[in-house]
Amino acid sequence: MLQTFASSISSLLDARADGHSLPAGLYTRQDVFEADMDVFFRKHWICIGLECDVPEPGDATVVDIGTSSLIILRDDDAAIRVVRNVCRHRGARILDPGPTVVSKLVCPYHQWTYELSGELAYAPHMGADFDKSCKSLKPVAFRLIGGLIYACLSDDPPEDIDFLAEVMAGRLAPYDIANARIAHQADVIEEGNWKLTIENNRECYHCSANHPELCVSFIDLDFGFDPDSLSPEDREVAREHEALYARRTENWEAEGYPSKAVERLSDCVTNFRTQRLIISGAGESQTPDATSASSKLLGHMTRKDTGDTHLWGHNSWNHFMGDHAVIAIVIPLSADKTLVRTKWLVHKDAVEGVDYDFDKLTSVWLATTDQDAELVARSHAGVKDPAYVPGPYSRFSETNLDKFASWYIDRMRANGY
Amino acid sequence: MLQTFASSISSLLDARADGHSLPAGLYTRQDVFEADMDVFFRKHWICIGLECDVPEPGDATVVDIGTSSLIILRDDDAAIRVVRNVCRHRGARILDPGPTVVSKLVCPYHQWTYELSGELAYAPHMGADFDKSCKSLKPVAFRLIGGLIYACLSDDPPEDIDFLAEVMAGRLAPYDIANARIAHQADVIEEGNWKLTIENNRECYHCSANHPELCVSFIDLDFGFDPDSLSPEDREVAREHEALYARRTENWEAEGYPSKAVERLSDCVTNFRTQRLIISGAGESQTPDATSASSKLLGHMTRKDTGDTHLWGHNSWNHFMGDHAVIAIVIPLSADKTLVRTKWLVHKDAVEGVDYDFDKLTSVWLATTDQDAELVARSHAGVKDPAYVPGPYSRFSETNLDKFASWYIDRMRANGY
Amino acid sequence: MLQTFASSISSLLDARADGHSLPAGLYTRQDVFEADMDVFFRKHWICIGLECDVPEPGDATVVDIGTSSLIILRDDDAAIRVVRNVCRHRGARILDPGPTVVSKLVCPYHQWTYELSGELAYAPHMGADFDKSCKSLKPVAFRLIGGLIYACLSDDPPEDIDFLAEVMAGRLAPYDIANARIAHQADVIEEGNWKLTIENNRECYHCSANHPELCVSFIDLDFGFDPDSLSPEDREVAREHEALYARRTENWEAEGYPSKAVERLSDCVTNFRTQRLIISGAGESQTPDATSASSKLLGHMTRKDTGDTHLWGHNSWNHFMGDHAVIAIVIPLSADKTLVRTKWLVHKDAVEGVDYDFDKLTSVWLATTDQDAELVARSHAGVKDPAYVPGPYSRFSETNLDKFASWYIDRMRANGY
Repeated sequence: MLQTFASSISSLLDARADGHSLPAGLYTRQDVFEADMDVFFRKHWICIGLECDVPEPGDATVVDIGTSSLIILRDDDAAIRVVRNVCRHRGARILDPGPTVVSKLVCPYHQWTYELSGELAYAPHMGADFDKSCKSLKPVAFRLIGGLIYACLSDDPPEDIDFLAEVMAGRLAPYDIANARIAHQADVIEEGNWKLTIENNRECYHCSANHPELCVSFIDLDFGFDPDSLSPEDREVAREHEALYARRTENWEAEGYPSKAVERLSDCVTNFRTQRLIISGAGESQTPDATSASSKLLGHMTRKDTGDTHLWGHNSWNHFMGDHAVIAIVIPLSADKTLVRTKWLVHKDAVEGVDYDFDKLTSVWLATTDQDAELVARSHAGVKDPAYVPGPYSRFSETNLDKFASWYIDRMRANGY
Repeated sequence: MLQTFASSISSLLDARADGHSLPAGLYTRQDVFEADMDVFFRKHWICIGLECDVPEPGDATVVDIGTSSLIILRDDDAAIRVVRNVCRHRGARILDPGPTVVSKLVCPYHQWTYELSGELAYAPHMGADFDKSCKSLKPVAFRLIGGLIYACLSDDPPEDIDFLAEVMAGRLAPYDIANARIAHQADVIEEGNWKLTIENNRECYHCSANHPELCVSFIDLDFGFDPDSLSPEDREVAREHEALYARRTENWEAEGYPSKAVERLSDCVTNFRTQRLIISGAGESQTPDATSASSKLLGHMTRKDTGDTHLWGHNSWNHFMGDHAVIAIVIPLSADKTLVRTKWLVHKDAVEGVDYDFDKLTSVWLATTDQDAELVARSHAGVKDPAYVPGPYSRFSETNLDKFASWYIDRMRANGY
Repeated sequence: MLQTFASSISSLLDARADGHSLPAGLYTRQDVFEADMDVFFRKHWICIGLECDVPEPGDATVVDIGTSSLIILRDDDAAIRVVRNVCRHRGARILDPGPTVVSKLVCPYHQWTYELSGELAYAPHMGADFDKSCKSLKPVAFRLIGGLIYACLSDDPPEDIDFLAEVMAGRLAPYDIANARIAHQADVIEEGNWKLTIENNRECYHCSANHPELCVSFIDLDFGFDPDSLSPEDREVAREHEALYARRTENWEAEGYPSKAVERLSDCVTNFRTQRLIISGAGESQTPDATSASSKLLGHMTRKDTGDTHLWGHNSWNHFMGDHAVIAIVIPLSADKTLVRTKWLVHKDAVEGVDYDFDKLTSVWLATTDQDAELVARSHAGVKDPAYVPGPYSRFSETNLDKFASWYIDRMRANGY
C-alpha cells in the first residue's frame, strides 16, 4: 500500500539532513503549505509594500496574502495605516485588489462606511442603539523601515523586528525610499513553491549560465565560490575581488555609507541579510551596461558609485542603488504557485524619457525574473517526482540555502510542528 | 500549529450566534459543501424546472444537480416524468445537458433503449434470458406545483411539500405557467457559496445602492427598514406604504387574488415564503419603466395591476406578474461556485417584436443578476478571509437571513450533523 | 450524515460483484487514483514508448508517468537507456517533455553534467573531494520487446514479463518495429478514469454504433457476440466467421506466422492478450477502405494479407499490420483524465506522399480515438452520479472487461489493499 500521506509534517522536518535540500513533502504538500502560510506569512513579519505605494492622503492599495486581504492607505494626517479588507457586517471585500483613491472606506454591499482610521462611521439599517465602536476595521501590525512596509498578521508580532529597523535605518536613509516614485511594477507567477523561489534567489551558482543580463552588473562570486574549481587565473581574479571588497567597504564606511554585511539567517526569528555589494563593469547600476538608468538620483544621493545595498527577507529581496531601487515581494499562492511582485523605484521627480529610459531601467530584472520563473518551475516539477531525493548544497555557493533550510526547520519547530 | 481543519461540522453549527451570519467554515469548507449537497439538494425538495421546459410529448431536458443528472421529459401521454440520466448498463450518460427531442431514450454507448416511461425496452448482447424488468431508469420523486417542477432525490421525500402545493395552487392558477413559453434563459455562475446567493436574495438592504434598474419597480422597504434611520419625510412615506399594503392586499383578496404573506422560513422542512407585492411606479411589471413588457398577458390574466406574486424556496426565487414571470433556480457547483439559472416566461402565443420587446422583458433581471453575482463574489472572498468574524444582521431588513441561517442549522442538525 | 468518504479502498474492492462493472469509488476517488498509480504504474510493467522514438545515438525523449519523468535515450553505443529526469543536485528537470538530441545530459540549473549512461561527469562548485560516483541519474528497469519499450518504476519488477517477451518475440519479428519510423503521433486527453479507457478498448460491443470508420476493417464479432440476438442470417455469418478463423489461423501458422490467441488476462501479474485478427473487406489494413496505406511494407514483411496482430497490455493496445502499425499508450493524468498517446509506424524508408498517404494512414484511428474519448467522458460522468450502480457486463461481448475487473481487484489485493 501507498504510505506517502501517512507521514506527519514533524517527521518531514526530522528527515531533513544538514547540507541538503528539503524533503519533497515540505515543498509539495498541501498541509505543509497551510502550515507555511500560518507560520511564515501570519506569525512572522513580511514585506507587503512601500510607503510610496500610497503617496497622498486618501491613496489606498489592496494587497492579498493568501486568503487575507489588506488595505494599505494614507490617512488624512498623511500617516500610513494597514487594515483588514473585510467589512464588519457580513464580511464583504471593501476594496478591490490594486490601487485606488478614497475619502472614506465604503463597503459596496450595504454602505457600511469607515473613516480612514478604520473606525465605523455609518451603518445604515442597524438601529439608533447600534454600538459602532467595536466594529472598526481590524488593524494590522506594521512597521515602516526605510520606506518599506513590514506587516505581521498575528496579534503577537516577533520583537526582533527592532534589530532589522535599527540596522536598515541608516543604510536606507540616503535613498529616501518613502518619497520615491514607483516607475513600474510587474507581477510574475512562478510555478513552484515559495521556498524554491527564495532558495533560487539566495545563490548565484545558477547565474552565469542563466542570467546573461544580470551578470553584466552582478558578481556571482559575491555569494561564494569553489576555489578548487577555478583556473589559476580565475582564482587570482577571485582573490583580487575579495581584496577589493575589503578596500571598498572600508572606504564606503569611512565616507558614511554603512556597507558591512549584517546577517541574521539562522538562530533568529526575523530572517534578513544586508550588505553593500560592488557593481561590476561600469559599476553604477543593474542595467544592461551597468551605468545609471536615471540621471536624477534617488533621494539625497549625490554619487553613483556607492554600489548596491542588498536586503533579503524571507519574502523579499531588494537592491538599492544610486539611481534606482528594485524591490521584490514574494507571496505564495498555493503549494506550487508563487507570486513575485517587482517594483522599480526612481526619484519622485524623475521623468520617463527625460531623466531615465524605461527599458534601461527595467530590462535586467524583467529578464532575470522570467528566467528565474522558468528555473523554479523546473525545480518544482523535479521535487514532485518520486525519484527526487534531497541533494547536497554546495558548501561554497549554497551555504545561504543551507541556512535558510535550517531556519525554516527551526521556525516550524518553534511553532509546534 | 494550525487548528483550522480540526473542527467538526457540528462544532461549526454550535458556533453560530443568533442574529449573526454563519461561521466562515459553513460557507467555505469542502466537507460542508458535500454535507449541504446531501442535506439540502438530495433530502429536501428543490425546484428543478418548469413543465413548459418540455411542452410536447418527446421533449426532454437534462438538469444536473451536483454530480446527479436528471432527465425531465414529457411522455407519450403528455405526462411529465423525471428519471436519472444514468444507463443501467455501465452508467453512461444517456442525454447531454440541455433540451432535446426523443422518441425513446437510447444510450449512445451500447444502444440500451428505454421507453419514455423509463422501462428498459432493448438491451443488445445481454442474452434472451436477461431480465429487463429490474433495469428501468431510476425514477425521481417530483411534484408539479403551479407549473413548477419540484424534485427530491431521496427515497424519503419530506411530506410538507403538500402545504406548499396547497398554498400555491390558487395563487399561481391564473398565470397558467404550465402552458407558458420560455422566452429566454440565462445561466450565471456566481463565485460564491450557494447560501450567500440565497442570503443575498433575501434582503433588499443592498438594493438601493446596487440595483438601479430593479429599484424602478421593486420596493426595498418591502423586506424591512429601520424607522430610526429614515428622515421624517421618508418615515412618512414608509408609513403610507404600509397602509397602502393593507388596502391593496384587502382589495386583491376581495377580487379573488390571494395576496397575504405565507411564510415557512423556520421550524419547517420545506422552506418557502410567498406574498403578493406592490410594484412601484407605473405598477405593472419588473421592467425598466415598470409597465408591462408583453401586451399579451400570462395565462388567464386580464389585469396588469395585480402586482408581483413572489415565491422563495431554498433554491429558487420567482416573480409572477400580469405579463410575465421570472424564475430563478440555484444550483451549487462547488463550495465557491453557484449556478443561477433564470427563465423569463410569457404567454405561449406572445410573439417577440409583436407582443413583447425582448430587451424590455429581460433587461432588469439580467442586470440585477450580474450585479448580484459581483456582490456574492465579494462576499465569498470576504468570508474566506481569516479576519472574517460573523457580523450582525440588521434586525429590520435582514430578519429573513436570520431565519434562513437558523433553518439551515436546524436542518443540518435534523440530518445528523 | 453523509458516509461516502468513510469507506476504505478495501471495502470498495469487497463490494465488487462478479460480472459487473466496478463500484463507483474505484473509478472516481482520489485515494484510489493514487493507489492505482502506485500499483499499476509503478509496480507493474507498463509500455512507455518505442525503440524508434530514439533512432540515433544522442536521441532522447521524455515521457511523464504521473509525477515521474523518464528520459528514454540512445547512448553512444546505440543502446537504449531509461533514466529518471531528476537532477541529483536539487532535483530540477534536466530535459523538457518531448524529443531532443543531446551529447551529454546537462541540467540547465547549475550545469551538473551526466554522460548518456547516466553517470555524473561534472558538478561545478562541489569541491575537488566530491564523490560523483553515487550521483548518477537513477536508472529505470526496462525491457525491449519487439521494438516496444516496457518499463517498471519499482526496484522489484515482476518476473513474468519473460513470458510476454517470449510470446511476442516471434510474432513481432517480421515487422521490425525497432527500425520503423513514427509517421505521426497524437495525444488525446480523455475526460475519464484510465480503467474506463481500458474497458472501452476491450470490447467492440460499442463499435457498430460509434466507429463507422473502424468498422470497415475491424470485425466487432471478434470479441464476442450474443447468438440469440442475431437474425438467422447474421447467425450464419457469425458461424462462417468462426470457421474462417479456424482456417486462416491454421494457414497463417503453417506459413510461419504465429496467430493463435495467447491470453493472460487473469491469474497473472503482467496482463496481456495477443492474437492475429482477420481484417475485414479488402483485408489488408485499418484504413478507410481496408487496403494498405503504405506501398512499402513494414520491416521484412512481404505480404499484405497477414491480418492484424493485436496486443493488449494494461496500459496499451497495438495493431501490427503488413504496411503499418498503430501503438496506443495510456497514461493516467488524474482520477478523471487519461492521456492516450497514439503512434503510427511505417517502414523507415517510406516517404509520405510517395509510398503512403498521410490521411489514409491516420484517419481511422484518429476518428476512433476521438469517438472513444467522447464515450469515456460520458461513462465517467455517469459513474460519478450517485444514481450509478455497477451494471452487468454482457457475458458474450464484455467477458474481457470482467477479466480486467477481476485482475484489477486481484492485483490491488496482492499489493496490500
